[in-house]
Amino acid sequence: MPEKTIEVLLSPKFGDVRGFASIGMAVGLKRSGKPDLGIIFSERACSAAGVFTTSRMAAAPVDHDRAVLKKNSSGIRAVVVNSGHANAATGAAGRALARLMSETAERSLQVPPRSVLVCSTGIIGELPNIVILRRGIELAARRLTAADRDFQKAILTTDKVEKVAGVKVRLAAGRSASIVGVAKGSGMIAPNMATMLAFIVTDAAVPPAALRGMLRAAAAGTFNAVTVDGDTSTNDTVLALANGMSGVGISARARPIFFEGLRQVCERLAWKLAEDGEGATKVVEVLVRGARTARSAARAAKTVAESLLVKTAMHGEDPNVGRVLAALGRSGLKEVQADRIDVSFNGLRAVSRGVLDRTHPAPALKNALRPKQVRIEIDLHAGPGAGRSVTCDLSAEYVRINAEYHT
Amino acid sequence: MPEKTIEVLLSPKFGDVRGFASIGMAVGLKRSGKPDLGIIFSERACSAAGVFTTSRMAAAPVDHDRAVLKKNSSGIRAVVVNSGHANAATGAAGRALARLMSETAERSLQVPPRSVLVCSTGIIGELPNIVILRRGIELAARRLTAADRDFQKAILTTDKVEKVAGVKVRLAAGRSASIVGVAKGSGMIAPNMATMLAFIVTDAAVPPAALRGMLRAAAAGTFNAVTVDGDTSTNDTVLALANGMSGVGISARARPIFFEGLRQVCERLAWKLAEDGEGATKVVEVLVRGARTARSAARAAKTVAESLLVKTAMHGEDPNVGRVLAALGRSGLKEVQADRIDVSFNGLRAVSRGVLDRTHPAPALKNALRPKQVRIEIDLHAGPGAGRSVTCDLSAEYVRINAEYHT
Repeated sequence: MPEKTIEVLLSPKFGDVRGFASIGMAVGLKRSGKPDLGIIFSERACSAAGVFTTSRMAAAPVDHDRAVLKKNSSGIRAVVVNSGHANAATGAAGRALARLMSETAERSLQVPPRSVLVCSTGIIGELPNIVILRRGIELAARRLTAADRDFQKAILTTDKVEKVAGVKVRLAAGRSASIVGVAKGSGMIAPNMATMLAFIVTDAAVPPAALRGMLRAAAAGTFNAVTVDGDTSTNDTVLALANGMSGVGISARARPIFFEGLRQVCERLAWKLAEDGEGATKVVEVLVRGARTARSAARAAKTVAESLLVKTAMHGEDPNVGRVLAALGRSGLKEVQADRIDVSFNGLRAVSRGVLDRTHPAPALKNALRPKQVRIEIDLHAGPGAGRSVTCDLSAEYVRINAEYHT
Repeated sequence: MPEKTIEVLLSPKFGDVRGFASIGMAVGLKRSGKPDLGIIFSERACSAAGVFTTSRMAAAPVDHDRAVLKKNSSGIRAVVVNSGHANAATGAAGRALARLMSETAERSLQVPPRSVLVCSTGIIGELPNIVILRRGIELAARRLTAADRDFQKAILTTDKVEKVAGVKVRLAAGRSASIVGVAKGSGMIAPNMATMLAFIVTDAAVPPAALRGMLRAAAAGTFNAVTVDGDTSTNDTVLALANGMSGVGISARARPIFFEGLRQVCERLAWKLAEDGEGATKVVEVLVRGARTARSAARAAKTVAESLLVKTAMHGEDPNVGRVLAALGRSGLKEVQADRIDVSFNGLRAVSRGVLDRTHPAPALKNALRPKQVRIEIDLHAGPGAGRSVTCDLSAEYVRINAEYHT
């Protein structure tokens, strides 16, 4: 009965997860007047884990969360997020502001010191107004509700759609836990509006070390396989909170089920990020097999997914396999051998053993690229390694968004 | 008298170099009827050297030239080039065609076997018509002239302008040699029309090993510092031919002068490649200093130059330094320390020690990005290493060219 072990929630919200409440509201940080502050709150202390940007220019909130999780990964009570300003490249003032955000939330929510994580997204180099931010956190803390659906709005910048996903996992006979996630990001980095953020909460009981291990593994195959423009934000953060209020834990038998549920939530959110990539009209999945290792397969997939020429060809629904081959050629993989490579577009073979495959006439190949989801499959015939990358096409709209947006 | 040691030629052509003749003509390979075949010929055997694509999918002509240069780097008489078809990803048929091109040229020009180099540029995966190609080479061989200026036209694909550069170098009292180069390329890879090609001829007497060393060094700082879209073609080739007919060689004193002349020709051609990048409206030069090594500086410069967000910001004349900092942050360099970095746009400081520098108001910074040439200077304050990358801005026109072009 695999369909009952993991059940996809059709209209998930944080309130589906026992003991969690949230809020999103406009407190005046954004000049547009759009929602710009959010809080996630748990009635009980949570196990918590994070996966953060690999950027050497990590923003102040990232440094803050890393330090808090190191000391208190089993006592997290809340997350506070602002949009509009990234608090990156802000030096000592930025570090003080991240601390102020968490302290204000801790006081307002009446939770212990070092129990609140913070995230910021928006323009790099700029700080939010400190008075507005403090008042906003105090106000939001008073209005927390379990049914809230505005949190996912408050964290958006150039995103066009809200991104929520959730599952119910049956971890023991008759006993289930919920996993619900919310994400933002119009790219791994959006224009000035940097950042990919995701927040995943569950009422399963998961010890911090296990949560960290599973979050890292799930993120590797999902969030970290997404690339919109190859840029990595200074603020990228994925946080997971587990408050245990379902009363059900991850026994040896339940652990793989919980992991698969977590992975599915990450996968759905990651896919929504690619779908909402700036200017995107298609999601493009690049699957590489036959590489020597999983690592080299992922690298080949990423090189193809990041190629501007592949992305523009997909936008133009042009089955131009030369661009795929050229990207593979420069991927730096030793196992790329010109006369071994197979390539197909949405199941139609276009290259066999390195030369154009004429089985399908050009119009049929072009037709195969019409759908909104395009799968490029590549076989290097050189080993057991498989990997993938998920991206979107590159449109003139991407350039318009990013060139015409002014700081 | 440095201005007399190296004299820039204002209207250079291959015919300025003693003993060289060339031709470019339309022989019917391109459906458009545009020039599509070119030959460079030397009266005497040349020292020759090449720098080739690092792609694992190197095209058949690249393999052919590598093999010829290995055996006969002091006996090269000619180069034959076709545009329209790249002869890449063409398997055994492609290898036979590259051989046929050189053999046909050797017979028609009455030069020894293995004395002709070949280059192809155009659609990947396709072969030119063999009958038309052979007849074209025979015809072109009969019409070679010293005054020809059509060669540079015959090698173009999506290029908008011809690219020629030349200098006269005084290698000894009263004795000079000429160095003239021609290039094509609208990106390191153009749409279907892959490839960056450059051909440099000189009448100086330069032994093959010295020519090879100098060509590699010159290409490293020029052609290999250019990036339009980060893609590397399957056909990229730079060839240098030296026939010695000026009677002047590269003595110990003359060698640095010759090298500087060669470097200047490469630099001018590389700059023209960036200027003619697909959809480009600006050339953007990224200079990094204060890195630990020259190699890491070049890597940081390339990461910034290839960032779509930096390129679109430059297109929009938006002094968005957050994008430059974010690119540096993901460059993988250990010496990137957020609180040490300085950034300036065309001489105006925008970031000091990692935070926004408010010395210049935003309109002044925006104004600094108006010119067609933009220089982004970065100081990492972490060592003596300096490096650079030259690119162009990213416009909606780039996407139009590459999405709307159909195979």
